[in-house]
Amino acid sequence: MQLALVVGTVVATVKDDKMVGVPFMALRDLDLDNKPTGGSIIASDPIGVNRGEVVLYSKGSSARQTEMTRDRPNDAVICGIVDQWEVGGETKYTK
Amino acid sequence: MQLALVVGTVVATVKDDKMVGVPFMALRDLDLDNKPTGGSIIASDPIGVNRGEVVLYSKGSSARQTEMTRDRPNDAVICGIVDQWEVGGETKYTK
Amino acid sequence: MQLALVVGTVVATVKDDKMVGVPFMALRDLDLDNKPTGGSIIASDPIGVNRGEVVLYSKGSSARQTEMTRDRPNDAVICGIVDQWEVGGETKYTK
Amino acid sequence: MQLALVVGTVVATVKDDKMVGVPFMALRDLDLDNKPTGGSIIASDPIGVNRGEVVLYSKGSSARQTEMTRDRPNDAVICGIVDQWEVGGETKYTK
Amino acid sequence: MQLALVVGTVVATVKDDKMVGVPFMALRDLDLDNKPTGGSIIASDPIGVNRGEVVLYSKGSSARQTEMTRDRPNDAVICGIVDQWEVGGETKYTK
Repeated sequence: MQLALVVGTVVATVKDDKMVGVPFMALRDLDLDNKPTGGSIIASDPIGVNRGEVVLYSKGSSARQTEMTRDRPNDAVICGIVDQWEVGGETKYTK
Repeated sequence: MQLALVVGTVVATVKDDKMVGVPFMALRDLDLDNKPTGGSIIASDPIGVNRGEVVLYSKGSSARQTEMTRDRPNDAVICGIVDQWEVGGETKYTK
Repeated sequence: MQLALVVGTVVATVKDDKMVGVPFMALRDLDLDNKPTGGSIIASDPIGVNRGEVVLYSKGSSARQTEMTRDRPNDAVICGIVDQWEVGGETKYTK
Repeated sequence: MQLALVVGTVVATVKDDKMVGVPFMALRDLDLDNKPTGGSIIASDPIGVNRGEVVLYSKGSSARQTEMTRDRPNDAVICGIVDQWEVGGETKYTK
Repeated sequence: MQLALVVGTVVATVKDDKMVGVPFMALRDLDLDNKPTGGSIIASDPIGVNRGEVVLYSKGSSARQTEMTRDRPNDAVICGIVDQWEVGGETKYTK
């Protein structure tokens, strides 16, 4: 999984039939020091996250293992909202 | 998923049997600020997109989860046409 | 899929049993302007391509979706010989 | 698999239902000379590792092949604690 | 598949149960000119390779398609020992 900041939303009305009903969030990747890596991804959201929250997301076939994304052409999914992480005993982020 | 601009088409007459009937579009990856990242990909198109449209595409096994691409040696598929996205409340793209 | 130029062949006599009978081609990745990206890959060839041809290849589990590569430890496969591609109306390559 | 140093933990209370009960560790990737590569990942931990240990982790669908991670939206898993590795006959790390 | 040089071994006694009995080799990636790319990976070895040999390895779900690695949390496997490869008619490596 990767850490990422929820920064926005993406609207797509015309979609493959199997993507109907899946909300898309725009995420910026974070490194372990809570700095942007420069990478970004559009992930589906089965949890209901808000802009400004830090999340964990999964890629690839694992992104089809939620109820919302099963059997869909979806390759990135938010799987948790991060409360806190620490590195070497130092807290790098608290919600 | 990744954001990308549809820039062209690829013609391949001699293909693996399982790729017959799959149209290929040339895509340039976009970052969240609607700037090219430098990356590109050839994706199959089950929707019928046009050059100049911004799309979402999926990679890997998820790219085989549309009716058109099921069980095919296809590793990238367009799954939606983007109408709009915003980052931090700022609209970065409107169709 | 990615565009690539067929540049050579790889011979491996001692292989995992499931790779016997699979020919390997050396490919150099091309960008949409028909320039080498610097990347390369060894892909199996179910079509019968020749050096100097431009091909499309697929990676990951999709590379096991041809008759030749089914259930094999193969993660890259040639899936088409490119006749032509264009970007923004400009032809970038013709066979 | 990749070599990585266990550097911390990530807490996420609100998760997709299928991620409940999976502990997340923060890992820094190591190269073969036991130097950080700059990459990092959050991996689930079915073994019970401690900070400061060097581990092997797997990505993608292979990260769902442990008892703990089966059928979960999990794309990285710790699969071993490294005792030692050597390169060219020189020991690069001993626990 | 990628070309890589076998440079060493990795010992991990404490492993996920499903990784017991799988030997791990340290590999350095090679480009088509037989130069190190700077990348490296730890791959399982179902063939029995020796240090100094050049091999082909597969990643992802394809790395679980050998008898040794089936259903294991393994994401990289050696699938052949390279005897020779040529690029543009020039031999780049002979065993």
